[in-house]
Amino acid sequence: MEVFYNPLPKKWPTLTARPTLSEENLDALVKPVFETVHAQGDRALKSFTATYDRVTLKNIQIDAGEIDQAESRIPSDLKQAIQLAKENITAFHKAQKTLPIAVHTSPGVHCWQEKKAIEKVGLYIPGGSAPLYSTVLMLAIPAKISGCEEIVLCTPPDADGKVPDVICYTARLCGVSKIIAVGGIQAIAAMAIGTETVPKVYKIFGPGNQYVTAAKQWATKWGAAIDLPAGPSELLIAADTTAQPDYVAADLLAQAEHGVDSQVVLVTTHKPLIARVQKALTHQLESLPRKRIAQEALENSKCIFFDQDCEAIDFINAYAPEHYMLCMQKEQQYLEGLRNAGSVFIGNFSPESAGDYASGTNHTLPTNGYARQFSGVNLDSFQKAITYQRITEQGLQTIGPAVALMAKHEELQGHQNAVEIRLKQSAK
Amino acid sequence: MEVFYNPLPKKWPTLTARPTLSEENLDALVKPVFETVHAQGDRALKSFTATYDRVTLKNIQIDAGEIDQAESRIPSDLKQAIQLAKENITAFHKAQKTLPIAVHTSPGVHCWQEKKAIEKVGLYIPGGSAPLYSTVLMLAIPAKISGCEEIVLCTPPDADGKVPDVICYTARLCGVSKIIAVGGIQAIAAMAIGTETVPKVYKIFGPGNQYVTAAKQWATKWGAAIDLPAGPSELLIAADTTAQPDYVAADLLAQAEHGVDSQVVLVTTHKPLIARVQKALTHQLESLPRKRIAQEALENSKCIFFDQDCEAIDFINAYAPEHYMLCMQKEQQYLEGLRNAGSVFIGNFSPESAGDYASGTNHTLPTNGYARQFSGVNLDSFQKAITYQRITEQGLQTIGPAVALMAKHEELQGHQNAVEIRLKQSAK
Repeated sequence: MEVFYNPLPKKWPTLTARPTLSEENLDALVKPVFETVHAQGDRALKSFTATYDRVTLKNIQIDAGEIDQAESRIPSDLKQAIQLAKENITAFHKAQKTLPIAVHTSPGVHCWQEKKAIEKVGLYIPGGSAPLYSTVLMLAIPAKISGCEEIVLCTPPDADGKVPDVICYTARLCGVSKIIAVGGIQAIAAMAIGTETVPKVYKIFGPGNQYVTAAKQWATKWGAAIDLPAGPSELLIAADTTAQPDYVAADLLAQAEHGVDSQVVLVTTHKPLIARVQKALTHQLESLPRKRIAQEALENSKCIFFDQDCEAIDFINAYAPEHYMLCMQKEQQYLEGLRNAGSVFIGNFSPESAGDYASGTNHTLPTNGYARQFSGVNLDSFQKAITYQRITEQGLQTIGPAVALMAKHEELQGHQNAVEIRLKQSAK
Repeated sequence: MEVFYNPLPKKWPTLTARPTLSEENLDALVKPVFETVHAQGDRALKSFTATYDRVTLKNIQIDAGEIDQAESRIPSDLKQAIQLAKENITAFHKAQKTLPIAVHTSPGVHCWQEKKAIEKVGLYIPGGSAPLYSTVLMLAIPAKISGCEEIVLCTPPDADGKVPDVICYTARLCGVSKIIAVGGIQAIAAMAIGTETVPKVYKIFGPGNQYVTAAKQWATKWGAAIDLPAGPSELLIAADTTAQPDYVAADLLAQAEHGVDSQVVLVTTHKPLIARVQKALTHQLESLPRKRIAQEALENSKCIFFDQDCEAIDFINAYAPEHYMLCMQKEQQYLEGLRNAGSVFIGNFSPESAGDYASGTNHTLPTNGYARQFSGVNLDSFQKAITYQRITEQGLQTIGPAVALMAKHEELQGHQNAVEIRLKQSAK
């Protein structure tokens, strides 16, 4: 980790910059896949899966019997852990339910707002060395609480054309309505367009590699919404004398092991912490299975010392971290000054891992500085707010003249007429 | 208006389809403007304005003296109307404020969520024949209530390089921090990138023509968020014997006058209403200044009769209208069955115009079927939700083993270590 001492604000744009994302334009690759899925439906999904995943699928949907079998193979300790995680995630996301809000803005003018579920949503769960079933929990639970009727999950099949047991188990547990053993661009296309087996959904959630990311972007051209702009995961830790160097190192490594492009940043007002954390990093790195990945991520990462807390706070807001751990004596000052972050982990016993799996908060969060303007996935991500108004005859008499005058000044005579025709008849 | 009787669901995709948007790719036009604004800042803005708006700007920012003068020229009746609108919009959007939510998901595991303002936002107000100051109200008021610190407004200058008085007046009234007399692609580029005068903002709001829309899309590549996908405005009216044909016609025309691509749809279960509305349309159209526009929009529009209310409700949900007016005897059934709409206007005295200007609801709404998955602009559009967690030593003892086990099954040893290093030390 490169160390910086009291960097001047003019240097911050460089220090807060994320690794540049590849500018490679994948549209030329993505577009024909969408067109083929549109033209051929399920047949295209099988054919792309044969080409890219090298597996021939008989059925693209996992049937109930397969899920039963998967369930029977999950060890009971893992089932219990998943159950605990599910309960906590459920409790936190249920608490996000809002009642309709209603106001009489003027006498006889009743306005209200209600949230309704997005009827059909799609969840993408990447493949890879290990099944990311925690993301199933993070997406399917709030979808179900919101009342989404159709929750489709797509994930790449393994070499036998199967979906990992724990994905099947978690998906059923959390109310996923269909599990589809298709991954990559074709999976996103299927959910955006719809096929015989895969329902067309209105919003697509979930992480993925550069192809999936490009496909999600392309899906917006087909009318789908997407959860968040994608980017490598990141962690900023603000720590001082109250922090434990070996915990800090463990948390930095947990983030760094995600990928070589993971970002970890340590901000401190306690100079001696830097050497201690570096020593602990070197020590802990040795026994990490994903050592090479973590090491490369660390090499691109930064350790920044500030004399002044207010400077540190300003820097953290400028960075706008996805994950923000806070082990500072002046914790309250840091919390009050916080403007931009995805999720915040406070104190020595709140490792990011807890939020990644089971504390209850969501782990789908804005990266790459997007915490300035995006929320992480939450209950609202699966809903939309509809506004309503009911105006009485008296209500229109109260606000109608203002509406008509304002419309006139925008040269919209039809808008003016729509009010005046009512006012005239009501005056009779 | 073309009339359809009990169309079968297989015909609905055609009936709910919006006029196809031009597929023309404007990126080739947009990209160099962004690059020039990035390279040259204010100088580029002046130069593009000279080219496209044919006016030479001395200053791109409207100064306080100009706003003072504008204010002095606004007639007092218009000031009063704007004040009424402001109060109602403020009341409705203030009611949308939410308190932090907090849950102890497990003993010692405290999770909460707080909303924070997006610090810097940009509002785009299109030029054209009349100044769209109502959109200033609809965007600046919730931005201010949310606590956005920097609220930049860009709008094209007139032939004298000025911004219309009523835009200046409304912008100041609603707390806009900077008024910039720049429009078009260059305005969006300026807000996305930042120049000497125009602050870089994190989210850009507001309507615009195809160039502005393409520029907003492009701005997302520069890291800005945008409010909503754009599309022509639309209105669906569900009406039966309880509706007044001349009110219905006036509302359809108010929508149709927006543009030749405006969509108006009448859904009814009362056959005689169709001829009555058509007669009223013909009559009212005659005196409309924007007759030609409204007439062309009407020609592309549809009138749909259903025998059954449940069919009508399903059709309305499939259409997912931006504006939805409801004058039906079985109003309650229609409201309970509603799943997809931007804003709903109930009863004979709730014309869409009221919501366009002064009832209090927002008029920036999802078009083109996007009401299936997007909310209209609301208080949350100017905020993001941050999650927090504070776990005690006991709390981590409760959930830590589950976290470690789940991490292990995702083959993320570093995540597991971050928990276990704490559990081990706490066991000592």
